[in-house]
Amino acid sequence: MAKNLRGKLMIFALGGLDEIGKNMYVVQYEDDLIVIDSGLMFPEEGMLGIDIVIPDVTYLVENQQKIRGIFLTHGHEDHIGALSYVLRKVRAPIYATRLTMGLVEHKLREAHLLNDTKRIVVDSHSVVKLGVFRVSFFATNHSIPDSVGVCVDTPEGTVVHTGDFKFDMTPVNGQMADMHKMAEIGKKGVICLLSDSTNAERPGFIGSERSVGEGLDEVFRKAKQRIIVATFASNIHRIQQVVDACFAHGRKLAVVGRSMINVVNIASELGYLQIPSDMIIDPDEINRLPAHRVAVMSTGSQGEAMSALTRMANASHRKVEILPGDTVVIAATPIPGNERMIGRTIDQLFRIGAHVVYSKTAHVHVSGHGAQEDLKLMLNLLKPKYFIPIHGEYRMLLAHAQLAESVGVKPENIFVCDNGDTVEVSGGKARYGAKIHTGKVLIDGLGVGDVGNIVLRDRKLLSQDGILVVVVTLSKKHGHILSGPDIISRGFVYVRESEQLLDEANRVVNLTMERCMKEKISEWASLKTSIRDSLSKFLYERTRRRPMILPIIMEV
Amino acid sequence: MAKNLRGKLMIFALGGLDEIGKNMYVVQYEDDLIVIDSGLMFPEEGMLGIDIVIPDVTYLVENQQKIRGIFLTHGHEDHIGALSYVLRKVRAPIYATRLTMGLVEHKLREAHLLNDTKRIVVDSHSVVKLGVFRVSFFATNHSIPDSVGVCVDTPEGTVVHTGDFKFDMTPVNGQMADMHKMAEIGKKGVICLLSDSTNAERPGFIGSERSVGEGLDEVFRKAKQRIIVATFASNIHRIQQVVDACFAHGRKLAVVGRSMINVVNIASELGYLQIPSDMIIDPDEINRLPAHRVAVMSTGSQGEAMSALTRMANASHRKVEILPGDTVVIAATPIPGNERMIGRTIDQLFRIGAHVVYSKTAHVHVSGHGAQEDLKLMLNLLKPKYFIPIHGEYRMLLAHAQLAESVGVKPENIFVCDNGDTVEVSGGKARYGAKIHTGKVLIDGLGVGDVGNIVLRDRKLLSQDGILVVVVTLSKKHGHILSGPDIISRGFVYVRESEQLLDEANRVVNLTMERCMKEKISEWASLKTSIRDSLSKFLYERTRRRPMILPIIMEV
Repeated sequence: MAKNLRGKLMIFALGGLDEIGKNMYVVQYEDDLIVIDSGLMFPEEGMLGIDIVIPDVTYLVENQQKIRGIFLTHGHEDHIGALSYVLRKVRAPIYATRLTMGLVEHKLREAHLLNDTKRIVVDSHSVVKLGVFRVSFFATNHSIPDSVGVCVDTPEGTVVHTGDFKFDMTPVNGQMADMHKMAEIGKKGVICLLSDSTNAERPGFIGSERSVGEGLDEVFRKAKQRIIVATFASNIHRIQQVVDACFAHGRKLAVVGRSMINVVNIASELGYLQIPSDMIIDPDEINRLPAHRVAVMSTGSQGEAMSALTRMANASHRKVEILPGDTVVIAATPIPGNERMIGRTIDQLFRIGAHVVYSKTAHVHVSGHGAQEDLKLMLNLLKPKYFIPIHGEYRMLLAHAQLAESVGVKPENIFVCDNGDTVEVSGGKARYGAKIHTGKVLIDGLGVGDVGNIVLRDRKLLSQDGILVVVVTLSKKHGHILSGPDIISRGFVYVRESEQLLDEANRVVNLTMERCMKEKISEWASLKTSIRDSLSKFLYERTRRRPMILPIIMEV
Repeated sequence: MAKNLRGKLMIFALGGLDEIGKNMYVVQYEDDLIVIDSGLMFPEEGMLGIDIVIPDVTYLVENQQKIRGIFLTHGHEDHIGALSYVLRKVRAPIYATRLTMGLVEHKLREAHLLNDTKRIVVDSHSVVKLGVFRVSFFATNHSIPDSVGVCVDTPEGTVVHTGDFKFDMTPVNGQMADMHKMAEIGKKGVICLLSDSTNAERPGFIGSERSVGEGLDEVFRKAKQRIIVATFASNIHRIQQVVDACFAHGRKLAVVGRSMINVVNIASELGYLQIPSDMIIDPDEINRLPAHRVAVMSTGSQGEAMSALTRMANASHRKVEILPGDTVVIAATPIPGNERMIGRTIDQLFRIGAHVVYSKTAHVHVSGHGAQEDLKLMLNLLKPKYFIPIHGEYRMLLAHAQLAESVGVKPENIFVCDNGDTVEVSGGKARYGAKIHTGKVLIDGLGVGDVGNIVLRDRKLLSQDGILVVVVTLSKKHGHILSGPDIISRGFVYVRESEQLLDEANRVVNLTMERCMKEKISEWASLKTSIRDSLSKFLYERTRRRPMILPIIMEV
């Protein structure tokens, strides 16, 4: 059979669809492929003990020779956080804007991967030619500077990936989204658009980050003692606005929290944060200055257990103590799932006697992701033939699909995909192609992928009702019990208050053993099953609980 | 010393402050006390395996002879759910309105407590004289009918407890809150007000339940196939509005979910739900009727794992299958902490092809708790001298305190309390009194209070990194190893993929045992500690995890 005269363009996600996190998208044309983003996700409930989740990149490993580069849209963890794991599996040059690259280099240095990784800094004017592709960029607004959309010219037409974006008409750093370039790209024609769906359920425009500056300014004007502002470490515009408020109101600024210090250092060095040289003080100096001359910028806006703000709230931070009359600003909204943790932190701060300013009671946060009108504007500027909503849980992708339809994209040209679903474009026509293997790789400590469903199921079981270990030693010669049964429990009941229950449990095991021996059941497996079943039944009847039961039989 | 001529009024909470749930308040004057509400709380994160939480009623047990009665403000679980546990510890007659009593009786019957409990049905016109107290009631609006506030005349003046309330100017059942009576009580003078703080952070009036009816009507008008409405089982007004919509649009109604069926039965029997006699169908009949002639009312509005709606979404409900084109209404907002679960349910329903209508995209829910203007109206009607915000987490109590201040209650007359803090009133003056013992009693299965901090800590540990059990059998005579060490792990790593690691772990234990024997360490406690320490160190270095390690030494 003759080789296809016309090649095939494939677009798919290895992560980022039906989830918020682990973004990783692939654009492939025959023997050339580029990867867009390489992010991590924080574990969902049920992923007990898991630290982070990354995409399964088996496809990339199997297509190593086709990978031309990994392009990063911006420096957030859900877009760059898997990089040091991915680069242990595949080799590829990294393309990123300056700030993004600064944050990436810090990561790669910690992972001892810096020297082995080719890194190319781009800006919104760069053009990169790789295989059949011509890759260019356009500046966007997001909650971190130097965010870009990626424009990939392919033999089948132009594919655009927006990255995370909103339209901020009065951006804090004065850098407008590059609407002229988007318009130009749209005019030339876009075969397929991939666009951020995070806020597709929210009506209106999302609004300017600058409005938060006004909220902060009001807080600074009123505060009589110290001000502590907690926000996302990566929100450099927000940090800049805190710095500006400090300058306007004559306060020095201390920075606490490892990730906050790290981002402030990198962003300052690279010129993305303008901080007067004498403004920053060491946390140790806080107490030497009058309270109304100090502000603190901190991590912990999500109530994370080990974060700086949570420690301060619990009076266990080594350097910063919050005093009655201090003002604490939580300049963030809770990420779904964190409401109760942040609620407890706020309560704790109020208990200390702090004035707490938070999103329910003041305007101290706007999202970095565009709402419905932002998304429609992007769609209208780029006028794509085909559309794939990305970066969102399923209902968000669907809501974005409806928006696309409302601005004139044909319903049959909208592909609401799962990770691994491929959209193939050939001869100007798109359709679903073969499914590609993807998945979640769980990381627990140093272990990558060694915790799977069985381990998680066991952790779940253990977390609900604990464990009972039943140990019996048998005589190898005579088969009779030499020692035990001993029952040890953890996470089941207070042993002291439940002695009687455990005594009876012991008797149940003893009776079971006797019965088994009478019936000449001597295989360990059957013996263990009998012990597990009888004990489980007894305990459920008595307590309505189902602890894990682990029978151990030793022969000597 | 002569006895005080003047007695002392004490007001305190055994539950309900700095938390949403397990409401239980006490009004005591010398040798007479009454209890208001007796609720449960659902477990917080970290309370692994716990089913429910109830107040510690030690104080009531110790003051059994003073208890004159338990008054219930309304029939929600956070106000009546602990009753069957409390009545096993203390005896007291129950005073409640008709619907509330109907729900309580169902509970007591299940707990075999019905016959031993004196029950007195009251209405908003009743007056109950108990000891020094004269107790009366006023009707309020809430998300369940027959809700009342409680007015307690004491020798020190009138104490008012609002129960849960809002002001609904167009209530679904036509029963207005008894503002005239509130005004009258206020005019006579209120020494102390206890008022619901749930929505004290929300500006404005909360709005009428009737507005949800309009939202539902629109959904019913548009739907072409079956309609499934999920809401709180206890929201009888909401249920009535679903019934009304079914009537208006000619649909039969099937009720699914144990708690929903239970509430519908009780409320219908008592006349609190008006359902046309031929409207209700058995879930088995759903498929026999045309899709546009059927609606289903269901539990599961919070995405609870075992609820009817979640089962339907996962296509595992025995009787109801959701088909593409069906409409699902989730007539509730997520309770903080449930956002992700309900999000997943919505996604799953969309995947099936259902039209999903939920609070982010339509008006299908209003809260039953008044917002700031409702709360101010209550304060202004009752004009209390002293004020105790109740029913809320700390920041909500504080927000409510500020509202009270804003309508003229003196700041020094506002008591923001914790559970167990007492406010004492004597000679018309209030101050903090001695603290009373309270606490959380955790219920796990049939166990009441047998799971405490140690057990929870173990469950937490087990849930994070699992457990390794190390078993060694020693010779009693010679002290040498007869069998083992055997290492069994659960919830730690996939055993198959980590054989090498476990082999090495085995070697670590062996070396430790040898060292101990050489050093003549033969006490089990020291031996176990050595094994635990060396193995823990080894595993942390290799995996950065800290599983629980349980050494078991058997001697034969």
